[in-house]
Amino acid sequence: MKKIRAAIVGYGNIGHAVLEALTEAPDFEVAGIVRRNPAERAGIPAEISVVGNIKELENVDVAILAGPTRSIEAQAKEILALGINTVDSFDIHGQIPALRKSLGEVAKEHGRVSVISSGWDPGSDSVVRTLMEAIAPKGITYTNFGPGRSMGHTVAVKAIEGVKDALSMTIPVGTGIHRRMVYVELLPGYELEKVAAAIKADPYFASDETHVIKVDSVDALNDVGHGVNLVRKGVSGKTHNQMLEFDMKINNPALTGQVLVCVARASMRLQPGCYTMIEIPVVDLLPGDRDYWVEHLV
Amino acid sequence: MKKIRAAIVGYGNIGHAVLEALTEAPDFEVAGIVRRNPAERAGIPAEISVVGNIKELENVDVAILAGPTRSIEAQAKEILALGINTVDSFDIHGQIPALRKSLGEVAKEHGRVSVISSGWDPGSDSVVRTLMEAIAPKGITYTNFGPGRSMGHTVAVKAIEGVKDALSMTIPVGTGIHRRMVYVELLPGYELEKVAAAIKADPYFASDETHVIKVDSVDALNDVGHGVNLVRKGVSGKTHNQMLEFDMKINNPALTGQVLVCVARASMRLQPGCYTMIEIPVVDLLPGDRDYWVEHLV
Repeated sequence: MKKIRAAIVGYGNIGHAVLEALTEAPDFEVAGIVRRNPAERAGIPAEISVVGNIKELENVDVAILAGPTRSIEAQAKEILALGINTVDSFDIHGQIPALRKSLGEVAKEHGRVSVISSGWDPGSDSVVRTLMEAIAPKGITYTNFGPGRSMGHTVAVKAIEGVKDALSMTIPVGTGIHRRMVYVELLPGYELEKVAAAIKADPYFASDETHVIKVDSVDALNDVGHGVNLVRKGVSGKTHNQMLEFDMKINNPALTGQVLVCVARASMRLQPGCYTMIEIPVVDLLPGDRDYWVEHLV
Repeated sequence: MKKIRAAIVGYGNIGHAVLEALTEAPDFEVAGIVRRNPAERAGIPAEISVVGNIKELENVDVAILAGPTRSIEAQAKEILALGINTVDSFDIHGQIPALRKSLGEVAKEHGRVSVISSGWDPGSDSVVRTLMEAIAPKGITYTNFGPGRSMGHTVAVKAIEGVKDALSMTIPVGTGIHRRMVYVELLPGYELEKVAAAIKADPYFASDETHVIKVDSVDALNDVGHGVNLVRKGVSGKTHNQMLEFDMKINNPALTGQVLVCVARASMRLQPGCYTMIEIPVVDLLPGDRDYWVEHLV
């Protein structure tokens, strides 16, 4: 069986996790890694090509975009135009429909496939939310994140004056409400009280219960574990009180990397266009043929 | 928008639940109910046609087969040949691949769609199992059923000499192992001890921890609630100990009826052939267009 040749574009936490997932996948081979400075090879096995531009790699079937969300649209358009599928974990929920439309046009024009917003949320959680909505069409779904680091909130804290380093943990308190536990290292001469007030006034934190704690080392708290608890209480037909729940405790980049590899595989089986995970049959996330999985998983 | 016209074939617990789910669905209308004795109309609203043969109903888009699993293959073939889609909740796991193949041939021949094994297990659980397998490809998934009534085990008990009525409850004890709590009403002259020994020797019970309890009325224990707990501990990429869990506490016929209506809807959007739920994009289980759900659920 011909293997799918995947390029990894961007090599941070997620790019590294994608490389691990590709290495373990029976149906993939790594075409290479694309990064700004291809001379930086620390931690990358010697047999993997590292290049500055995807055009330097041969016969790439799919590019796995593992860089920042903001760079995805431009990158994906360029790569689709080269006749290569793209997948990403674009995670700004409100901008997903627009990205799906714009990449859909480019993908169709070049006869290729793009799968966007494929991590765990948006991503695998979206699949579970959709299934829950279908099987209990009336009701409320709550997505409770954490405990785990919020990238967006952490970046917002780091931008505040007097903060040397920071970590904002998302703590679920139920019904989609979250507490923010913010750990900060301060620059010399700054007081916790004033920095804490500035953090709590920031739009990222203003509407949540927020606690700011001074620590000697933010690095000492580093843990990429995360979690989610999705709950829906709803109505099937005319029957109320159907209780549905999905719960995960996971290594965040490892799960994101694995999901990206799954959708890279699915991209090879879809008609040209742009898709989110809820638009892909779940069986197409798996290697091999459908018959095997129908027999083993249905 | 033109509504989907669905016929309900068979009107027991599941057929009744399907009628309720169709009534609540914004995009369906009930073409009618097909049952052996169409004169039996107890509990069926006067405006619903009840007929003895689906040919008596007009413009049926999809037939929802709500009768016994054993009758599904023959029924589905006949109805597909009439140019009508079929959906069912065929639940003998080992026979699903063969049914998918045989109905697939008939469906393609007549340019129609059949969706099989669509309840909660097989069905929505299959979707969750597949998603879990994809995002943590190495590991073990346990499906823990209950607490709830097992139809198969209950029927097996009722066949044993001396049993007037019976109920076999499935109790999850973890790692896919189940305890059987069997409640029996005895016929006059029979002793619990002997009947219990016969039940425990039956192949349905021989390998499980089984308790047999004599009751005055099995009917007094009637409760159609059920549940499942799906757990997977696995590996994403090279990262171990990813913890995934799905949990439901539900009214069993209501959920099955709702799922059948969801797949009846999806059947209108698929290419001719036979499918299980893991082969259908989850968004197609929902009414209306994809764009709306991408915006609200991804």
